[in-house]
Amino acid sequence: MKIEIIAIGDELLSGQTVNTNAALIGKKLFSKGLKVGKVTALPDEYNALREGIKEAMGRSDFIITTGGLGPTGDDITRDVIADIFEQPLVQDSEVKKDLINRFGKKLVTLENQSMVIKEMKVIRNSIGTAPGFICGSHPSIYVLPGVPIQMEEMLEDAIEDIQSKCSEKFYIKNLYLALLTEKQVDPLLRELEQKLPGISIGICPGYGVLSIYFQGKDQHVLDRAFDEVVNQFETHVFSKKSKKIEEALQDLMINKRFTLSIAESCTGGWVSSRITQVPYCSQYYLGGVVSYSNLLKESVLKVPHKVLETHGAVSEEAVISMASGVKKVSGADFSIAISGIAGPNGGSKEKPIGTIYSAISTPEGVFSGKIPFKGSIKKRSLYIDYSATYLLSALYRYIVYGVCPYGL
Amino acid sequence: MKIEIIAIGDELLSGQTVNTNAALIGKKLFSKGLKVGKVTALPDEYNALREGIKEAMGRSDFIITTGGLGPTGDDITRDVIADIFEQPLVQDSEVKKDLINRFGKKLVTLENQSMVIKEMKVIRNSIGTAPGFICGSHPSIYVLPGVPIQMEEMLEDAIEDIQSKCSEKFYIKNLYLALLTEKQVDPLLRELEQKLPGISIGICPGYGVLSIYFQGKDQHVLDRAFDEVVNQFETHVFSKKSKKIEEALQDLMINKRFTLSIAESCTGGWVSSRITQVPYCSQYYLGGVVSYSNLLKESVLKVPHKVLETHGAVSEEAVISMASGVKKVSGADFSIAISGIAGPNGGSKEKPIGTIYSAISTPEGVFSGKIPFKGSIKKRSLYIDYSATYLLSALYRYIVYGVCPYGL
Repeated sequence: MKIEIIAIGDELLSGQTVNTNAALIGKKLFSKGLKVGKVTALPDEYNALREGIKEAMGRSDFIITTGGLGPTGDDITRDVIADIFEQPLVQDSEVKKDLINRFGKKLVTLENQSMVIKEMKVIRNSIGTAPGFICGSHPSIYVLPGVPIQMEEMLEDAIEDIQSKCSEKFYIKNLYLALLTEKQVDPLLRELEQKLPGISIGICPGYGVLSIYFQGKDQHVLDRAFDEVVNQFETHVFSKKSKKIEEALQDLMINKRFTLSIAESCTGGWVSSRITQVPYCSQYYLGGVVSYSNLLKESVLKVPHKVLETHGAVSEEAVISMASGVKKVSGADFSIAISGIAGPNGGSKEKPIGTIYSAISTPEGVFSGKIPFKGSIKKRSLYIDYSATYLLSALYRYIVYGVCPYGL
Repeated sequence: MKIEIIAIGDELLSGQTVNTNAALIGKKLFSKGLKVGKVTALPDEYNALREGIKEAMGRSDFIITTGGLGPTGDDITRDVIADIFEQPLVQDSEVKKDLINRFGKKLVTLENQSMVIKEMKVIRNSIGTAPGFICGSHPSIYVLPGVPIQMEEMLEDAIEDIQSKCSEKFYIKNLYLALLTEKQVDPLLRELEQKLPGISIGICPGYGVLSIYFQGKDQHVLDRAFDEVVNQFETHVFSKKSKKIEEALQDLMINKRFTLSIAESCTGGWVSSRITQVPYCSQYYLGGVVSYSNLLKESVLKVPHKVLETHGAVSEEAVISMASGVKKVSGADFSIAISGIAGPNGGSKEKPIGTIYSAISTPEGVFSGKIPFKGSIKKRSLYIDYSATYLLSALYRYIVYGVCPYGL
């Protein structure tokens, strides 16, 4: 059973848009035990699109297309699919009625967007204007729009249809580890694959987080492999469902009724932003200060002028003072502070780019130190993101496993 | 001339990793006037990968692969390529010497990573351990690693080689417009395509930003189309090089020697983070406060308790007070404040989810109002990101074109 995704749009090929739709579909299918075998991105060009879809039809059982269903000039997916199935476009009175109900009779694109491919099952779009389609039975093609929130909702219908037509399934389990490198974990995974035939274990390094994917047809064997990895790296385990450490931290903090505040300098709001992207974070996160300038470090966080003068804003003394400052002004149980040089400018001989100090203030005292960067981080955005992951992971590991945030 | 990208890795198909490499390559090629015709993502499976690459060789002139060159068990790209070209792997003494120089003799993967495909040109990896390859001449295959910063650097060699082998080129121009919808702009673009044959104009909506791509072989015709769009939508134009409004705002603010500070509630640090992701932002950005809890609004921003009690934290009164508070504590020329309900909880009948107030404090006075959400934003992350884009765009348009931030 082969499943394939085709994402449509010139902007995907010119790199102006990242193909997040393919990842979203792949993830959703994977979570249902369905494995995508190929992803293709094709341009808004009639012949290239037609040829690309026909190629896919020759090799796959299920094809999900996304994009090119809107009313503008470069939206041609509906026409191409109609052409492949040799069916005309016809007006659908149900679709039209629904569009009028939601957008009114004056909707400029009403006539265009109520046209459907004859004989094909329509997937209703409850958010936007473009209907989707289920075409053919072997292979089955699921034609979805490109706007992510519309596509995501309509994908449910596609998955239901695929599941009804498909018997082959496998079990999956995910595991997410913090602050380990691929090299530290991979040998065990390969050993397990040898020892336990029928399972495959994938590993994907992200800066600071390792995602590990277990797949197999026998659930017991899968569990055994999973447990061995958990046992070996226990104090690094933070989730079995998401690679976002901020989600695990939130569950933990809310569960323990702890509160948190943050003082950020070089990360510029990114730690705070990652925390607040998770719904319901206000149950534990009180907020913080982006003390990018020294003035804000002094005026709001009460970092003594002398500390900044003597040790500089990028120093262990400064982050300790920032952590106390934000804890005091917010009344939080825990606080995090960070200050460093993320580049591309600002480095010096004593404090080169990548010198980033941080402090974690806990009810038991303050821990502080330099963030250790492993491997080949050499970019502003990576320094910022890895620092955030490091701090959130260190706080999590301290509370759950009692691991010292800076390795003592 | 057909160019194709093949990204390799199970994690791309299961959606655990978004295929940012393909976007990065597409963008880089596009900026050199080279157009990618197809992107494929393939799994870490020998036969699927071999078949996928051979298919691509049958239809494209240049193929760039990324991923699967590392030392771990699921890295098989080098073997597959060697197999396709019927060449053995051999140890390369130059590569080995370089690895020892950079990582020492104890590098565990030294033997593995110094193996290259016989007869193929090696692309040096100056950051990581895996060398890349240029294989064949028609088609030419460029074999690059998957780690983005390594791939990005080695891509330069691939592009140079493609350019040397390829004569066909087209001109491109990009234009980025703030706070317009696709429907407002697309009709003009289609009219221009009809009127000026030989050019094609792509449009890509992002929440709050429209990216427009002009392509054509005649530079004068291209300029004409470009100028017509600029003239028609002048007060929405913010960049000809990047869709990031924060980059345009930074250039503007530094040029005018203005400073900025921000008080964020519902956006939780995201506005600040977008600003500080741009290098050199400290030349104008002073920092801000993520006043997620009411306590921080009062203690740091000095929002009167009475305002919060009478009007609530989500109100025009609150954001005006937050904007003054952060301006005062930071000493900035301009300040932005935002407070609202991004969901999924916290909505009420009077203030449903999506009620987001903001204020922009300028040397000429304070502007404030509700952020108008167009279309189908219904998600926390989109409310947050659109709000950030709206505020940065409104500030930009106010300073450059004198456009009132809340439409008055």
